Amino acid sequence: MERKYLELKERVLKANLRLAELGLVTLTWGNVSEIDRVQGVIAIKPSGVAYEDMKADDIVIVDLNGQVVEGHLKPSSDTPTHLELYKNFPHIGGVVHTHSTYATSFAQAKKAIMPYGTTHADSFFKEVPCSRELNKEEIQNDYEINTGKVIVETFKNRDYEFTPAVLVASHGPFAWGKNAQDAVNNALVLEKICQMNLLTDILNPGDNKISEVLEKKHHERKHGPHAYYGQKEN
Amino acid sequence: MERKYLELKERVLKANLRLAELGLVTLTWGNVSEIDRVQGVIAIKPSGVAYEDMKADDIVIVDLNGQVVEGHLKPSSDTPTHLELYKNFPHIGGVVHTHSTYATSFAQAKKAIMPYGTTHADSFFKEVPCSRELNKEEIQNDYEINTGKVIVETFKNRDYEFTPAVLVASHGPFAWGKNAQDAVNNALVLEKICQMNLLTDILNPGDNKISEVLEKKHHERKHGPHAYYGQKEN
Amino acid sequence: MERKYLELKERVLKANLRLAELGLVTLTWGNVSEIDRVQGVIAIKPSGVAYEDMKADDIVIVDLNGQVVEGHLKPSSDTPTHLELYKNFPHIGGVVHTHSTYATSFAQAKKAIMPYGTTHADSFFKEVPCSRELNKEEIQNDYEINTGKVIVETFKNRDYEFTPAVLVASHGPFAWGKNAQDAVNNALVLEKICQMNLLTDILNPGDNKISEVLEKKHHERKHGPHAYYGQKEN
Amino acid sequence: MERKYLELKERVLKANLRLAELGLVTLTWGNVSEIDRVQGVIAIKPSGVAYEDMKADDIVIVDLNGQVVEGHLKPSSDTPTHLELYKNFPHIGGVVHTHSTYATSFAQAKKAIMPYGTTHADSFFKEVPCSRELNKEEIQNDYEINTGKVIVETFKNRDYEFTPAVLVASHGPFAWGKNAQDAVNNALVLEKICQMNLLTDILNPGDNKISEVLEKKHHERKHGPHAYYGQKEN
Repeated sequence: MERKYLELKERVLKANLRLAELGLVTLTWGNVSEIDRVQGVIAIKPSGVAYEDMKADDIVIVDLNGQVVEGHLKPSSDTPTHLELYKNFPHIGGVVHTHSTYATSFAQAKKAIMPYGTTHADSFFKEVPCSRELNKEEIQNDYEINTGKVIVETFKNRDYEFTPAVLVASHGPFAWGKNAQDAVNNALVLEKICQMNLLTDILNPGDNKISEVLEKKHHERKHGPHAYYGQKEN
Repeated sequence: MERKYLELKERVLKANLRLAELGLVTLTWGNVSEIDRVQGVIAIKPSGVAYEDMKADDIVIVDLNGQVVEGHLKPSSDTPTHLELYKNFPHIGGVVHTHSTYATSFAQAKKAIMPYGTTHADSFFKEVPCSRELNKEEIQNDYEINTGKVIVETFKNRDYEFTPAVLVASHGPFAWGKNAQDAVNNALVLEKICQMNLLTDILNPGDNKISEVLEKKHHERKHGPHAYYGQKEN
Repeated sequence: MERKYLELKERVLKANLRLAELGLVTLTWGNVSEIDRVQGVIAIKPSGVAYEDMKADDIVIVDLNGQVVEGHLKPSSDTPTHLELYKNFPHIGGVVHTHSTYATSFAQAKKAIMPYGTTHADSFFKEVPCSRELNKEEIQNDYEINTGKVIVETFKNRDYEFTPAVLVASHGPFAWGKNAQDAVNNALVLEKICQMNLLTDILNPGDNKISEVLEKKHHERKHGPHAYYGQKEN
Repeated sequence: MERKYLELKERVLKANLRLAELGLVTLTWGNVSEIDRVQGVIAIKPSGVAYEDMKADDIVIVDLNGQVVEGHLKPSSDTPTHLELYKNFPHIGGVVHTHSTYATSFAQAKKAIMPYGTTHADSFFKEVPCSRELNKEEIQNDYEINTGKVIVETFKNRDYEFTPAVLVASHGPFAWGKNAQDAVNNALVLEKICQMNLLTDILNPGDNKISEVLEKKHHERKHGPHAYYGQKEN
């Protein structure tokens, strides 16, 4: 029974370690989870454990109420945020939180990432938004749940599948995807487009937005019924 | 017969892997090709395949009409752009496309890279231009062919051999060279001069252009009948 | 007897080598020490020795008057600064000095690092201050002791445990912690928040300060009686 | 006889490879030499050879008139510049030329590197100057010798031992030192202080110069009769 979630834990371990390899996290910052919607559990990084020491058995299995189902360590303190996202974004399978340098700087500046080129459009449709700031009550009680609720609120009129990331104001980025690895990929692309966006603004302080027709073209090359990028048949 | 293009594929694999090693690409972004003008084929990276998993046999052989001649995978979705360049630039042997950070930022800012020093002049004669934006019709139909056509149009009054790179507006850089490795070298130098150009402008917002006599001197140290850089006899 | 301080030396060696691995130091710059308050000694990096050649036996054991107790090399020229900090900050166990790129740039600009986000608040409570400049007499006589005294003066109305770092004007950062490794962690986080702080200001030249309620929340998630981050029971 | 200069070649090979390891050069850019003033020869990198393929026997031995004494390859095209420096700066033993990112950007902006902190003062006394631009005649005839002459001219009223580097306008940095390794160290510190200088100016566009008394103190900690940094007895 202890090995029931072994494959899930190994995938989540691998995705967490990749976060460190890609330079998206420092020390014990950041966390990745993946959901098993059939079993009704998520696997998530333990709280405050160094990446270089982490083993598959350190990954914590938690049910959708946040109760530990399997594991000898405390889950990430951000677990309630992950759960809130899984409950409200029914088509996602993985969630990532980082304090990556450029995305966190945008979150601190409370600026959305406008689509400036095809690099953005290939992975994110329209701007990647920045959430509003949490208010005093939301911070003092159930802070991590409320972080999730504010993200969900930010996507009220957005498509969370086409724009799989958000900046939480004064905090940092969350990204998601089909599974843990896909979520890490989106967190990586997010960091790259933040850097390019800032550099583009330095080069040309004017309007750098991609045209809507080119944005749509690149999005549809990769997503939806007419996609023709990659090896998968549609 | 399946091994007919083995050496070509191995060179193109190596050039693609080098792109990843040099930090010019992220995830599955970017692609390198090389042409065999005698056989009338190009070898190019498959679409959407991770660099770490790529083998020589994954490289796709395509004829000049874009038909797959050999290979079990779909070629890069940018293949028609590469073909357009090979057809119009008869002296090039390799083409590279990346979304490298600084060059893509210049493309997003729609700014040409002005020659600011001998680093630029050693590899690129005069400015590296930024193309015009594609119009709606060019984007919606035959987008990748039209990307190639707009690059060719940008070089109507330029020497594609002396200035072996371009920025495609709102998109990113293409570079070319004698073969795949040479094209990758040019893509790398392009990224470096973009970074230095931006830093130079921050340090001194005024006019930083290299003098024409120094530009010419450095260009001719490396290129043409009076070249004396490197080990080759002229 | 020569092996009396072996474990202490090995910890300090490891912490110094980690400084180099993390890219916080160049050539022989920087130094880490740890105190053994029972024995009344500190272990510190030798002066001007390359990181790649350093062995545990090169680490110098010095008493609280700065006299070498064990070791065949001269201790770091910054040893008197470290001693001044250990004497005045009784709860610290390790001290680090670097010339890391972003923190040193803030020190050269003589700017405090304002708290812009939760990344800052997780490790540093309120701003990380920049010291005043030393005056002529302080520089010409007992310069290294006076560097320590000016740091202590900077913390007259601050909590050195909650804000475990400082910038010394025109010089660079010092950080401290429970032990040598903890001090290195703080030096690393300091470098990261300096970089993010500068990027945030470029993105938004206005007011980017984190709200006090969010700052307090993140600080208390990690520090004090209500901490719930990490694996330790309180 | 062919092995006469073996040790010299091996030192120069090692110094050149270190240039690549430190990220100060790209492709075949840059070159390091060392002089044997007793034998009246210098050892220098061959022109246009890739760092990864370089062997000790590829290093070229050249006399002070620029004639090849030993070696099967052409020496660096910058050899006449190195020779000019060795002839005019009698106490130097090694010379380095790079196109490192930040130092080259300062050279392109034609800006001296002002001393902003102790990192600068530890290695360079007063500003690191930027040369004047070469005129048309200096470029068209004996360009590399004239590059050396302009560097020497820039140091007419400066101490080349206390300030062991220069920026050549529109080109890039040259650094020197007691031997090849020492020159590479100076080229590395130069790159770091250029980066910090630029970041400091972004953080605080005002006056960031280090006080003269602190500048002198740090210089004298490391250089001259009262030096007390490092392990050497004076």
